[in-house]
Amino acid sequence: MIVRQQHGRDESMHSCWPPDAVVWPQNVEQVSRMAKLCYTHNIPIIPFGTGTGLEGGVSALKGGVCFNMTHMERILNLSTEDFHVTVEPGVTRKSLNTYLRDSGLWFPVDPGADASLCGMAATSASGTNAVRYGTMRDNVINLEVVLPDGRVLDTAGKDRRFRKTSAGYNLTNLFVGSEGTLGIITKATLRLYGVPEATVAAVCAFPSVQAAVDSTVQILQCGVPIARIEFLDDVMIDACNKFNSMNYPVLPTLFLEFHGTEAAVKEQLQQTGEIIQLNGGSDFTWAQDQQERTRLWTARHNAWYAALALRPGCRGYSTDVCVPISKLPEILVDTREDLIQSCITGPIAGHVGDGNFHCIIVLDLNDEDEVRRVKEFTDRLARRALAMHGTCTGEHGIGIGKRSLLREEVGEVGIQVMEQIKATLDPKNLMNPGKVVV
Amino acid sequence: MIVRQQHGRDESMHSCWPPDAVVWPQNVEQVSRMAKLCYTHNIPIIPFGTGTGLEGGVSALKGGVCFNMTHMERILNLSTEDFHVTVEPGVTRKSLNTYLRDSGLWFPVDPGADASLCGMAATSASGTNAVRYGTMRDNVINLEVVLPDGRVLDTAGKDRRFRKTSAGYNLTNLFVGSEGTLGIITKATLRLYGVPEATVAAVCAFPSVQAAVDSTVQILQCGVPIARIEFLDDVMIDACNKFNSMNYPVLPTLFLEFHGTEAAVKEQLQQTGEIIQLNGGSDFTWAQDQQERTRLWTARHNAWYAALALRPGCRGYSTDVCVPISKLPEILVDTREDLIQSCITGPIAGHVGDGNFHCIIVLDLNDEDEVRRVKEFTDRLARRALAMHGTCTGEHGIGIGKRSLLREEVGEVGIQVMEQIKATLDPKNLMNPGKVVV
Repeated sequence: MIVRQQHGRDESMHSCWPPDAVVWPQNVEQVSRMAKLCYTHNIPIIPFGTGTGLEGGVSALKGGVCFNMTHMERILNLSTEDFHVTVEPGVTRKSLNTYLRDSGLWFPVDPGADASLCGMAATSASGTNAVRYGTMRDNVINLEVVLPDGRVLDTAGKDRRFRKTSAGYNLTNLFVGSEGTLGIITKATLRLYGVPEATVAAVCAFPSVQAAVDSTVQILQCGVPIARIEFLDDVMIDACNKFNSMNYPVLPTLFLEFHGTEAAVKEQLQQTGEIIQLNGGSDFTWAQDQQERTRLWTARHNAWYAALALRPGCRGYSTDVCVPISKLPEILVDTREDLIQSCITGPIAGHVGDGNFHCIIVLDLNDEDEVRRVKEFTDRLARRALAMHGTCTGEHGIGIGKRSLLREEVGEVGIQVMEQIKATLDPKNLMNPGKVVV
Repeated sequence: MIVRQQHGRDESMHSCWPPDAVVWPQNVEQVSRMAKLCYTHNIPIIPFGTGTGLEGGVSALKGGVCFNMTHMERILNLSTEDFHVTVEPGVTRKSLNTYLRDSGLWFPVDPGADASLCGMAATSASGTNAVRYGTMRDNVINLEVVLPDGRVLDTAGKDRRFRKTSAGYNLTNLFVGSEGTLGIITKATLRLYGVPEATVAAVCAFPSVQAAVDSTVQILQCGVPIARIEFLDDVMIDACNKFNSMNYPVLPTLFLEFHGTEAAVKEQLQQTGEIIQLNGGSDFTWAQDQQERTRLWTARHNAWYAALALRPGCRGYSTDVCVPISKLPEILVDTREDLIQSCITGPIAGHVGDGNFHCIIVLDLNDEDEVRRVKEFTDRLARRALAMHGTCTGEHGIGIGKRSLLREEVGEVGIQVMEQIKATLDPKNLMNPGKVVV
């Protein structure tokens, strides 16, 4: 289990695992040459983007060389006709969207941190917009990857950028989510979207978790093309209120966002409003102007800091599970009860349209008993998700924290196949060793 | 190169490759036991769904046992709350949608043939709805696969059915598109969608290919969530008119479809109508009632037979490439010219919103010179697509027909990595040998 420090870098709950050396390659040729050198001398490689991952993906468990990719930061081949762009590993999601500001296009995948896009590809990240726009799995068109022995692979072929293909094995999606264990991503070609003509955000409180989730299921069943639908439990709302000087009712709450033409958004609001009313939700508060929307989503993105502020001086750990949406009420109620029984501070926030949620646990690392309780709680939570046909991680990845849970999730044969792939592509186990499978 | 016979079965242009034996397993345990037996005795396995693939995927190049999966035809675990269903390999796309008829849900991926859904997963198929709903890559949640040695793998873990995950390597999308070369798919869990409240189809003729494609790009840029946008060139329209006793202008034409609420569809029609008018398109003919829409899409789905009727007694071969949308006018004009120069009958139809199109070539297999010209033409077409950052197949797969093109597309390292994966998962090269990579 990993605890994110307040400055946004990962640190193991138990100890820090620094690499033996750090290099800052400037281009793919240098990455390839250094990888070859490491391969010859059996030295582990740890790729590093922004270090904002949550499951210890950048810990150098066996020492080795950290490849800090932040000096490769070009944005290439933007096409406004074909809706794609290529980025180097130093480009973060916010810097890409700043670059795109005048193009009429944007990239929607938004994990909490301003992560590097290649790191997001490596982790199979997603965020608040995934319910409408998909995750990194859906939005990476091609990757340039340096393999452990220095060979340079273009997962879909060099400079290829099509909307679909059925040519050979899907190597792109083998590397998306591989967490640096199969190679070093040196370029990602991403799918872009048109900036919607109109965007409206809304907030709504509910008498119960069940009512909030029922509303979500019904909104999706009605085919409302909702862009964001985020759940915050009463503890989370309370923390947000305090941290952001806001005044929302301390109840299970949905933050929503609608994208489309003016007329389409108006209709979506009306449909959603009716569903929410049927489920006993409060009057929907809309925020059409940019300033008000920014305030709302800043509050959502600040959930991490709002949680930390509940216990000054403590550390945070954000767990992450995902279940079929219909199972959300049950797992959220059970988890809430478990948190109370375990005396753990853990407000809940989540991407409820995907069935994905987080407990942002705030704990005192010096309290051994609390650390043990948190560890046991997070394992119980993951197993509760697994028992409901879910996954132990919707978007944070396996890292070092969830390897045994991965085994429970995919079963013995699943692990065997993953290990076979790892062994054939990284026979010396030099790529980010100790993560995901080995 | 493969030529589809009129009864819908594949046949090599050069010769037929029947297996030594055919088995009809009833359940996954039988598949596993028979696979083990084949593994022990080094006997090739050829998985068979409906045999409607277009690149020779079911040819038994090295003999062996054909696993005909059509007797496994249960539909399991439909969830109308979580929008998923699980199907066995005998279930076709049409039979699933018939089953779903009263559920308010549907499965949108629709290749021309009424293919088996597990076969569609194996081929990474798509069709006319992909521009809005994605391809099989986007819509398969989990697969049960029997590996060459008889082990049973659940690619996302047994009975898992979540909307997203970042747990370990994406094995699901490794098997989607693997064309039976890595294992036998025995179950697929698929994502479903709500049936739209309103559906309207439309037809529009254009003065040029460029005008039709420009309209497409602009419709997508404006964020119109179009469900289908299909291009038919003048030769194709002429053939359709004759075959279906219709009377469309013999010009480059778009067939379109809009899904949404009544109001949303009305707005989409208006936006699209304006764009089409700006590009010199004809007045948009709408078809709101089911009968008229069925007539229109039947004409589109009958394109294959309409093409064949151009030269009675001849055979058809549908090529398949995909390029960035902005390259479509250039490649379509060049391809039309090439067809004329090569004296080949090949009307063009395609999923223009994805940049994907087909030439439905009609040829006399007894005319050696024509067969040679067709072979050279299809290779030139694929290379033209590759030169424009495209792929040699958007949805038909590699099979035996496009293995050398795959090498050009993904490069030496790409092929090496695919071969490494094949060798580790199928060390004896028994799974559908001679397809895709080996």
